[in-house]
This record gives sequence, C-alpha cells and structure tokens, in this order.
Amino acid sequence: MKLATLRNGSRDGRLLVVRKDGLAGAPSPEAWPTLQRALDDWLAAEPALRLLSSELDAGLQDGTPIDPLRLGAPLPRAYEWVDGSAYLNHVRLVRRARGAALPPTLETDPLIYQGGSGDLLGPHDAIELHDPAWGLDFEAEVAVVLGDTPLGVTAAGAARHVQLVMLANDCTLRNLIPDELAKGFGFFRSKPATAFAPFAVTPDELEAAGAWRDGRFWGRVRSRYNDQVVGDCEAGPEMHFSFFDLIAHIAGTRRFTEAARCRTPSQAAACHAWQKPGRSRSSKVGPR
Amino acid sequence: MKLATLRNGSRDGRLLVVRKDGLAGAPSPEAWPTLQRALDDWLAAEPALRLLSSELDAGLQDGTPIDPLRLGAPLPRAYEWVDGSAYLNHVRLVRRARGAALPPTLETDPLIYQGGSGDLLGPHDAIELHDPAWGLDFEAEVAVVLGDTPLGVTAAGAARHVQLVMLANDCTLRNLIPDELAKGFGFFRSKPATAFAPFAVTPDELEAAGAWRDGRFWGRVRSRYNDQVVGDCEAGPEMHFSFFDLIAHIAGTRRFTEAARCRTPSQAAACHAWQKPGRSRSSKVGPR
Repeated sequence: MKLATLRNGSRDGRLLVVRKDGLAGAPSPEAWPTLQRALDDWLAAEPALRLLSSELDAGLQDGTPIDPLRLGAPLPRAYEWVDGSAYLNHVRLVRRARGAALPPTLETDPLIYQGGSGDLLGPHDAIELHDPAWGLDFEAEVAVVLGDTPLGVTAAGAARHVQLVMLANDCTLRNLIPDELAKGFGFFRSKPATAFAPFAVTPDELEAAGAWRDGRFWGRVRSRYNDQVVGDCEAGPEMHFSFFDLIAHIAGTRRFTEAARCRTPSQAAACHAWQKPGRSRSSKVGPR
Repeated sequence: MKLATLRNGSRDGRLLVVRKDGLAGAPSPEAWPTLQRALDDWLAAEPALRLLSSELDAGLQDGTPIDPLRLGAPLPRAYEWVDGSAYLNHVRLVRRARGAALPPTLETDPLIYQGGSGDLLGPHDAIELHDPAWGLDFEAEVAVVLGDTPLGVTAAGAARHVQLVMLANDCTLRNLIPDELAKGFGFFRSKPATAFAPFAVTPDELEAAGAWRDGRFWGRVRSRYNDQVVGDCEAGPEMHFSFFDLIAHIAGTRRFTEAARCRTPSQAAACHAWQKPGRSRSSKVGPR
C-alpha cells in the first residue's frame, strides 16, 4: 500500500491512498483524514486503507490524478524524528572531512540524534539557505514510521512496529556543526527541516519486490543534485545497524508513543466517567 | 487563563479550562477538544477559552471539581521538545560532577538539545527506572509553549510567540550520559520522558502577579524529593538566557511550526480545488 499527503491548507494535509503506479489516488475514508490520525488508530484504519488501495489497483476506482507539486511530506509534522547513522562508511567520510575522531564504539553503539519534527518538508518545497556561509549539504536517507513501540522492545520484536517506509533528504548546515558539537549537546541549529519523498509504503509492498528484509531496505538509492548523480548505492548491504537494531536502541529507555492514555484501570474508569459520551469524535481514538 | 488536560483514554486527552484556584474546571468548547487543536487555531480558540475562563472565575459557571490524579501533561504529546540550559550555575555543577569541561561559549551560546516529545508524562505518572544502574536524576524546569514561530525571529520579536508557560520535571539517566556524549551526538537514551506539572498558564496570568518579565519567570521554584526540599530558588534572577534569547537561538535555522500549509499561493489554489468542501472538519484548521 502506498500513501501520500495532499496539501490542503491544513497543518496535517489530507491523506491519500495512491495507486501502485503513483499517478492517481483517492482521499482516505473520512474517519482518518490525515496520516497521523490513521497511525493513531492503525488497527482499524489499515484494513480500510488497504481496501481502497486494492480497489484503485484493480481499476474499480479511477481515483484522481496526482500532481506531485501538491504533495507534502507523508507526515507534514510528526511527534518524533530520530536520525541515526547506520552506514558506517558515511560516518567515516563525514568525520574525516571535518577532522573529527571516530567514536570507539562505532560498530556496536549506533550514533543517534533527535531532530526537529514540527516542520517536515515536502518533496518540492524550497530548501531554504538564509546564509551561504552555513554550508548546506544534503543526504539521502531511508526512514520508517513506527506505530506504538514499547520501552525495552528487542530487535527481534521490532518488526511489527514498522508501519511505513519512506525516503528522506536530511539537510545539514555543515559549517555550523563543529562549533555546535564542541558544546557537547549534539546538533540543533546545524539541522534545519528534513525533506521527504512523496510516498510512504507499507513494508509488504517492498517485500513483494524483494526489497525489505532483516529490517533493511534492499534497493538502490540514487541522489541527484540538479541533473548530476552524486550518490548511487545499494542501501541494503552496507546498512550496518538494521532498523530493528536502531529501534531497540532508541526504545531502550523510552516508549514511542502511547501518549495520554489512562495509565491505570482506575484512572481509565475515573476519566471515562468524566468524559461526556459523544462529545467529540476526535477526542476518541480507537483501541490498539 | 489556566488550562489542563484530562485523561480520557484518547492520545491527546480533553482540554479543560481551569478556575483560577485550580480546583474546578470545564471542558473547552467542542471546536477545540485538545490543547494541540487549540494551539493550531489559537487566534480563534484563545478568545473562546478566555470567555469560559472568566465565567468560571466569576462564578457564572460552577465547573466540575478537578482530581489532579486524572490530569495528564497539558500537552500529552507535542511536535517538538527543546531543552536548554539557561541557568549557568546548573551547567557548572553538572559538568563538575561528571568531570567535564565547560564550553568556552557558555555565556554567549546557549546549550540546547532536542528531546523526545511523543510521550510527555503527567504530574502523577510513575517515572520508570528499569535499571537502577542508569542513575535517575530529576530537575525542575520552566517551559513555554510556542505558537507558530518564524525562522529568524529576533529575541525582541519572540514575546508574541509565547502562548503558555508550564513547569516540567526533566528526568535524566545520569550514568548513561558520559558514554553517550562521548559519541558526539548529544543525549538520547540518557533522556527518558519528561514530566509536566498539571497546569499551563498564559503569560498575562503571571504578569498580573509580577512573575513574567523580560522573557523570564520571576517566581520561586521549590523541588521536593518525597518530603525533602532539595531545591528552592528564585527562577528569575539567575536565568542567564531569557526565553526570548532561547527562542531566537532555536529559530535561527528552523521554523516552529507551520506544517503542511500550502507554501505558495498557486499551491494553495491548486490544493483547495482538489479538496472537496466540507469533507472533514478536522482537516480544516482555521487561519492564523
């Protein structure tokens, strides 16, 4: 299944289910107008979205042609954006370029940072560079969207929490990095908004093409700067830490993300009693 | 105006407007059932919330008694959580305790990191420590909630983007810090979920009490561990960087956060044409 988000003037856009060829799509059912809403209620939303997807693919629905210029990031804003260095050759090259040492735990302890997630760029948005001295760089990345992921999940248990796979362009203001990292708190100003490719696909879509295995995307990722190819690699073989490894790492001391539920049965009983029935659809998110 | 979020089984809870004494409150108007929804549409939401607030304070509405055990964080999940070290004495003490050097730009360049924001704990949630060897620590913090904040905003222009002020408990797994910072990417596993005090207040509420000036909270923040007072400080005088300074710093290369809007007029015309009118209330967020 292939999903996209149409810009419609709202903050989260309008979720579209996209035909396999990427050329036409249809708005998701009313109950899940945005991808975030669908993720919040995935058990119920996924079958409905897949039904629409299969109807589009079978030609039972025409859909509406998709203009890529109207698409935002699949998730135009998200509750977390966690970026990790799974390709050790990249780490080696980047550190060499700025004359920084490699961490001794490079091969056993993933390099991870938390990035901004309130403003995620769409595939055709301008990448703004307000001062050329900042030194804008770009970097192709494979990303996954997690469903609720419990604290302490193992790599072996991580597969079922991967709902979607996406491509991203991680922008970096390279010249701001040395001073920022010297302070010891990691990246912040050196990482402006991240941009995303238009489509998010479910892992089975890649699996069917032999391109999703062992928590890795086994496909070719080609990067162009205008018309010039600047990167062209097989994403699978050199991914040292799999997504499952990375998920286990980040969930070691945190959960992703089951916010605001009533945390105990007695809390649930108490707060449900307070909530007047049928007050607002949107304040009720289905069970998971 | 004082706001809180009631746990109701949904991810974002139910927004309450709270009487000045904090003992009773009423659900926000239907159009803004959650604090995030209100923030997304603040120009329209704020006057409606303030009207309800004044009715509660004037006794024109009884409200419903508030049980603090039923409250979550005012924002049970958020699109960004950015934590800065504005109290330099704290930086000096923490670094001395772990034998780390002070950054040379300590007084001119704020220490900032991006923290997790998908799971923000409520005032009575358990703070989980799954391995005592991690060394759990806690830390009182004053926090502000931003409305849409443009890239490049100055400190002088930052005031109008501060919508709410909150108190937080920043938990840290101290013993995970040295190895994590040695990798050079900042905190991640050493920062579990942050906890929040139950109420969020508008700055004018503090101003009226002389406790909000120059982008700082001028009040006493007392920290207790069980019954023992472990911190008791005047939050105003020692705040080296004001919130306005910190906002200007973090917005230097990013915006917070106007996601998924149609970025150009032609995009807007195109995507509005695609969107069928009246499809879904929730996909339309009011103008700001």
